[in-house]
Amino acid sequence: MSADTKTLQIQALAEAARQASRQLATTTSAQRNAVLGLLASHLESQAQAILSANLEDVRGAIDTIDASSLQRLKLDAAKLAAMVQGVRAVAALPDPLNRVQLRRELDGGLELTRVACPLGVLCVIFESRPDALVQISALALKSGNAVLLKGGSEASRSNEALLAVVQGALREAHLPETAVQGLPDRAAVAAILLRPDLVDLVIPRGSNALVQSIQAATRIPVLGHAEGVCHMYLDAAADTEMAVALVRDGKLQYPSACNAVETVLIHRQAAARLLPALATDLAPRGVELRGCPACRAIVPSLGEAAEADWDMEYGTPILALKVVADLDEALAHIRTHGSAHTEAIVTDDTTAADRFLAEVDAAGVFHNASTRFADGFRYGFGAEVGISTGRIHARGPVGIEGLLSYRYLLRGHGHRVEDYSGPSGKPFRHVELPLDS
Amino acid sequence: MSADTKTLQIQALAEAARQASRQLATTTSAQRNAVLGLLASHLESQAQAILSANLEDVRGAIDTIDASSLQRLKLDAAKLAAMVQGVRAVAALPDPLNRVQLRRELDGGLELTRVACPLGVLCVIFESRPDALVQISALALKSGNAVLLKGGSEASRSNEALLAVVQGALREAHLPETAVQGLPDRAAVAAILLRPDLVDLVIPRGSNALVQSIQAATRIPVLGHAEGVCHMYLDAAADTEMAVALVRDGKLQYPSACNAVETVLIHRQAAARLLPALATDLAPRGVELRGCPACRAIVPSLGEAAEADWDMEYGTPILALKVVADLDEALAHIRTHGSAHTEAIVTDDTTAADRFLAEVDAAGVFHNASTRFADGFRYGFGAEVGISTGRIHARGPVGIEGLLSYRYLLRGHGHRVEDYSGPSGKPFRHVELPLDS
Repeated sequence: MSADTKTLQIQALAEAARQASRQLATTTSAQRNAVLGLLASHLESQAQAILSANLEDVRGAIDTIDASSLQRLKLDAAKLAAMVQGVRAVAALPDPLNRVQLRRELDGGLELTRVACPLGVLCVIFESRPDALVQISALALKSGNAVLLKGGSEASRSNEALLAVVQGALREAHLPETAVQGLPDRAAVAAILLRPDLVDLVIPRGSNALVQSIQAATRIPVLGHAEGVCHMYLDAAADTEMAVALVRDGKLQYPSACNAVETVLIHRQAAARLLPALATDLAPRGVELRGCPACRAIVPSLGEAAEADWDMEYGTPILALKVVADLDEALAHIRTHGSAHTEAIVTDDTTAADRFLAEVDAAGVFHNASTRFADGFRYGFGAEVGISTGRIHARGPVGIEGLLSYRYLLRGHGHRVEDYSGPSGKPFRHVELPLDS
Repeated sequence: MSADTKTLQIQALAEAARQASRQLATTTSAQRNAVLGLLASHLESQAQAILSANLEDVRGAIDTIDASSLQRLKLDAAKLAAMVQGVRAVAALPDPLNRVQLRRELDGGLELTRVACPLGVLCVIFESRPDALVQISALALKSGNAVLLKGGSEASRSNEALLAVVQGALREAHLPETAVQGLPDRAAVAAILLRPDLVDLVIPRGSNALVQSIQAATRIPVLGHAEGVCHMYLDAAADTEMAVALVRDGKLQYPSACNAVETVLIHRQAAARLLPALATDLAPRGVELRGCPACRAIVPSLGEAAEADWDMEYGTPILALKVVADLDEALAHIRTHGSAHTEAIVTDDTTAADRFLAEVDAAGVFHNASTRFADGFRYGFGAEVGISTGRIHARGPVGIEGLLSYRYLLRGHGHRVEDYSGPSGKPFRHVELPLDS
């Protein structure tokens, strides 16, 4: 097939998604939940077909991808059950659409409302985990958005099987199956990324390299985070036991997560107390500790941290340690090396905590809590679309509200602007009205 | 000066803005309002210097720009007083920063809050109107943002004088004057547009061509609207008098505004009634009417609308008229030719109105009201940053909230994620707490 034919094909696919999105935008909550109900049942009834497609993927990838990717790729009955439960949980969420966000009487008989509406067409790129396809489809459909999906090629058979179930559920609910479509390959993604007119939001879910490459290739808004260099600052007044427990949780509870701690900053006055305690706790658990010269003067067994370590998102049980003179130096270090993702202070000094919480500019700023709490489920969002380190639209863990825009509706009785203009024009009333009536 | 030196200079300027923005982000509302108070007084006390700088600009531009641009460029005592009043009005707005948007107990002693914070550094490009410099500076400072400004070159002396007043107010309030800086020329703007790391939001205020050229040149989010092809659909059940009055207001109240009506769609069943009434009202007021063949069959004196007319944002007293078979055709026409800016239906039929309001995907969807109401002041936002036809971040008229992002603050007592994980993990409570305590 020629490149031109291919481009036209991808364009047709995106235009079909746009059309489907218009239809979805005007569906009722019951219609959208019906699709999700069908999707959940069909995932259960077609479990065998899905698992055997997945088995083929696993067999094909076993020699080419690492153990943890293989783990993410592999589906089993438990993962399938979790997927089904996830879809039903999304169906149970309150309807995000048409919610009234603002209601204001501009003048007698002239009422303004702001109501939530879908973004339109999403493009989601994800890596080896095929469960992502189902979760993303559920979130998109719940919020009335169409979605173009590109999964990892190593999961292509699994994704094909899951996509067929999603599209079957749409058909059965008399909604266009073009609301959820797969993008065949990277060239298709590249073609889509060049069309801000066809796609409203790109969500890359995967490695930092993936996110960075997408951000560099498109003018479409991208929701995601390219980096997660998170710090924990142990203040002079940090409790030893709490500090050790929080660093352990932040680093070891799930080292490859973006909200895991990469660098621990330690107040000079507490270094002699905290560093040996950290080393005693973490080294036996297999954490490689890399310290600055001041750290190594206190605990000589530490490895050596190079300048590059301060910018590393290890994703593995490696931890950089640095002694700082005071809170100011900690704040400056975080400004220079942080990713504006999640930053934490451990201290019993409320003045220091308040300053840290006021001054650190990051999506999450924590006091005496593990950075690992930065997560949509833990925040109570019901479902997580992604974590954003951007400042526009949505920041931090993003729930389904990140897939929404809004419209202003104005209902009048022949109201003209002319009557409100000039020196003798009528004034506006601007009376807030209750949202729920 | 070499291109490299220049690029470095612009980079230094933007980095100074970034630093100033960090300082602004932690100022109190009183500090920010103090700057605005000083700005208002100094605009009054330095009126003479400002007006004479402006007079030079006007003299320099008199032969090169058109009358309406000259009108926008020219300052006088009344405009200056309006500027001062505008600054004081912004100062009087409630503090947008640190407002608690969400407060939730995740578990005992573990409390999540979401608080508003500034976006960071804005870049605002505006055309001949020098009052924009003061308004933008006031909005940026009120919301704790630094701003890089590029005004029209024909207003360079006025802008320089106004910028000096703004920077003087910052200095006097002991805040960095680098919080508000001018960009010397287009090359500087071009250099800034290539640096998404230095600027968080670009706001082009001016012609569609300006907005389009900016959007094409940057990956930084752009708040604005490149087009405003707004429609008024006169339904079969439109009241004649109301329809004529609303079309007149939509077209003539301020024809160059982006929310002015460009095309009127008329239901076939009402065409014989409405078209002559429209022609009788509008033609004597100097509106050039261009109709489709069906329109001209009813009112032969109409001009001829070509296919291109359906996509024209005239900005002048020209109006395109088209007869449509029904609401469906009106909706389809708006989907194809609208800019998703503001669309209105005139009808006494509530079923038709409800469908129009539910199905039209635009920032503003109006029933029996003029499209000209699509405006931040009329909506009651206190101040308008711009009107956005994008769907990400902010849509429609954007008030000061469009200059804000947020941070999640989490306060715990040593809480670790490990304790909430796995089959025996603690559940979260997720209890909503009142926002105001």
